[in-house]
Amino acid sequence: MAETPIRFGILSCAGIARKLSRAIILSPNSTHYAVGSRSIDKAKKFAAENGFPPSAKIYGTYEDVLDDPDVDAVYVPLPTSMHLQWAVLAAEKKKHVLLEKPVALNVAEFDQIIQACEANGVQFMDGTHWVHHPRTAKMTEFLSDTHRFGELKTVHSIFSFAGDDDFLKNDIRVKPGLDGLGALGDAGWYCVGAILWAFDYELPKTVTAFCGPVLNEGGVILECGSYLQWEEGKTATFHCSFLSNLTMAITALGTTGTLQVHDFVGPYEEKSSSFTTVSQIGFTARALPSQHVVTTDLPQEASMVTEFSRLVKSIKDGSSKPEAKWGSLSRKTQLILDAVKASIDNGFELVQVEA
Amino acid sequence: MAETPIRFGILSCAGIARKLSRAIILSPNSTHYAVGSRSIDKAKKFAAENGFPPSAKIYGTYEDVLDDPDVDAVYVPLPTSMHLQWAVLAAEKKKHVLLEKPVALNVAEFDQIIQACEANGVQFMDGTHWVHHPRTAKMTEFLSDTHRFGELKTVHSIFSFAGDDDFLKNDIRVKPGLDGLGALGDAGWYCVGAILWAFDYELPKTVTAFCGPVLNEGGVILECGSYLQWEEGKTATFHCSFLSNLTMAITALGTTGTLQVHDFVGPYEEKSSSFTTVSQIGFTARALPSQHVVTTDLPQEASMVTEFSRLVKSIKDGSSKPEAKWGSLSRKTQLILDAVKASIDNGFELVQVEA
Repeated sequence: MAETPIRFGILSCAGIARKLSRAIILSPNSTHYAVGSRSIDKAKKFAAENGFPPSAKIYGTYEDVLDDPDVDAVYVPLPTSMHLQWAVLAAEKKKHVLLEKPVALNVAEFDQIIQACEANGVQFMDGTHWVHHPRTAKMTEFLSDTHRFGELKTVHSIFSFAGDDDFLKNDIRVKPGLDGLGALGDAGWYCVGAILWAFDYELPKTVTAFCGPVLNEGGVILECGSYLQWEEGKTATFHCSFLSNLTMAITALGTTGTLQVHDFVGPYEEKSSSFTTVSQIGFTARALPSQHVVTTDLPQEASMVTEFSRLVKSIKDGSSKPEAKWGSLSRKTQLILDAVKASIDNGFELVQVEA
Repeated sequence: MAETPIRFGILSCAGIARKLSRAIILSPNSTHYAVGSRSIDKAKKFAAENGFPPSAKIYGTYEDVLDDPDVDAVYVPLPTSMHLQWAVLAAEKKKHVLLEKPVALNVAEFDQIIQACEANGVQFMDGTHWVHHPRTAKMTEFLSDTHRFGELKTVHSIFSFAGDDDFLKNDIRVKPGLDGLGALGDAGWYCVGAILWAFDYELPKTVTAFCGPVLNEGGVILECGSYLQWEEGKTATFHCSFLSNLTMAITALGTTGTLQVHDFVGPYEEKSSSFTTVSQIGFTARALPSQHVVTTDLPQEASMVTEFSRLVKSIKDGSSKPEAKWGSLSRKTQLILDAVKASIDNGFELVQVEA
């Protein structure tokens, strides 16, 4: 008898939910169960267009999804300003929570979310796909290799895309009341995540935002960057933007090796992706770069859903407690976003990072 | 009848002069004519090992090279702290000057060099090879393409190599009295040059060094980085180091395109090199990267020597005056190095750049 898949409810029909809907269908241990929207017509349309089974529940409020006892887990793609309310309520209703990034408007809000998840014994995970791609595990192997890579010295990360006129005028990510962190919360989330990943999630000591970020009329960040410092000689920089061409790069330099990846946020191709390494062992011989190709059957967002559902399943059958790692990684990322924002708000002063 | 090649004299037998000696041999309009060293034995050995013709003059002082009336041009690979004295003297002796980078310890010194060259009607060029590679011209074409690249937004450049124990102890680049700018003057010269090149040599308005550069016991910079700003939304960052793995990267983001090159300082292969572009015209369709391969018969340092000798030849035969562009580019690069140094020396304060 096949195992019962984890039953997802989706809160809202945001555009971003389409990708996750496909991922739930592709994920072998997950299934669509319900969708809720403030407009029941929108919810119906979303379910019809996104491969929900005919038996799927269509609700006209988010709360109805949370009140359905057969929903195991919710995916929350609501604007960031609504995360606190709905993620906490979901946890209180004993629903496992897969929450879009940025996870909250600030760490204080996120701490309420994570406390609600802990208090109610539900799994938390944020919706960062790329860390679940098998390529990331391969890149981690390289960064951990003391011979081929040595000791990590510096990381540079870029995530930018050029929003068109409609995006820059109407997207929730450029509206002060909705996703208050703008490009920092959206594209910057990935850059900061990439840097922390490379540093094995050791937090930097200080963060200094670059002067001259670009803000829109509502004061929302459209482009910014920052410098991060660990102890002497360990540093990182990033650049995030809604204003320049799609670029998704990590460059990590160790004492003996360099890693470069150009599509880390979402690989150019779903089933085959690559990264490049160079290991220069010795001073004079000139090493050539190696390209490493990683193939996968599942797109990275489906790998994420599968891992989330695996954890939920273990909790449901009583074999495990919630895995605290995912909330911890989200919190560290949010903490750095907060520090960058604080540095911008305080004239680009150096900000001490306190966990 | 073949044209008479430009006759080079080399001041000193520094290790770096070996590469240039080969370039002079490969360059069709250049020839070895003399070498001077404070040790005539060293000069003899250098000439024998580096393909000088039997007729080449071997001198036991630098001044003898400058006094030889048949020397057209000198290549000066002396430590930076000696550039002012010897480049000025060379110009005064009417020798055209090919000077290693960094061109001076600061702009004030460099201005004396360039004034001496102008006053004596001799050509000046610094020894930065990569701008003479035909790949660079191809990359310039891409950055100038308003459709494929759009408007330049940001550049990130890295040049690092991991010096071994001997290098970090004994190389002139880590000695306070010799090359006072350390990794900033050496590796940083390339990073700053790459950034200025991408910005078509428009100077930034401000420079802010990153806190926490690594210095050695003598106070010489082994690793540092900086943030540069033009008007709002046009920025650059760089990282230069003697302490991390060989990495030579430029990433330039425009509004519609991205350029990436991973071996800009010196291509992995002499005769064939590449760079990658992505042009994302429109918001939703996903563009794939294109690799552009550029082939060349001459290594880039021989292209540099050939261009230098071409300019010298035109001056010699009276058809042109010295080309001021090369001194101007060197001065801009040196000006930014000075600003980074000033920012480091002043607690990482923002420095206004004044041409």
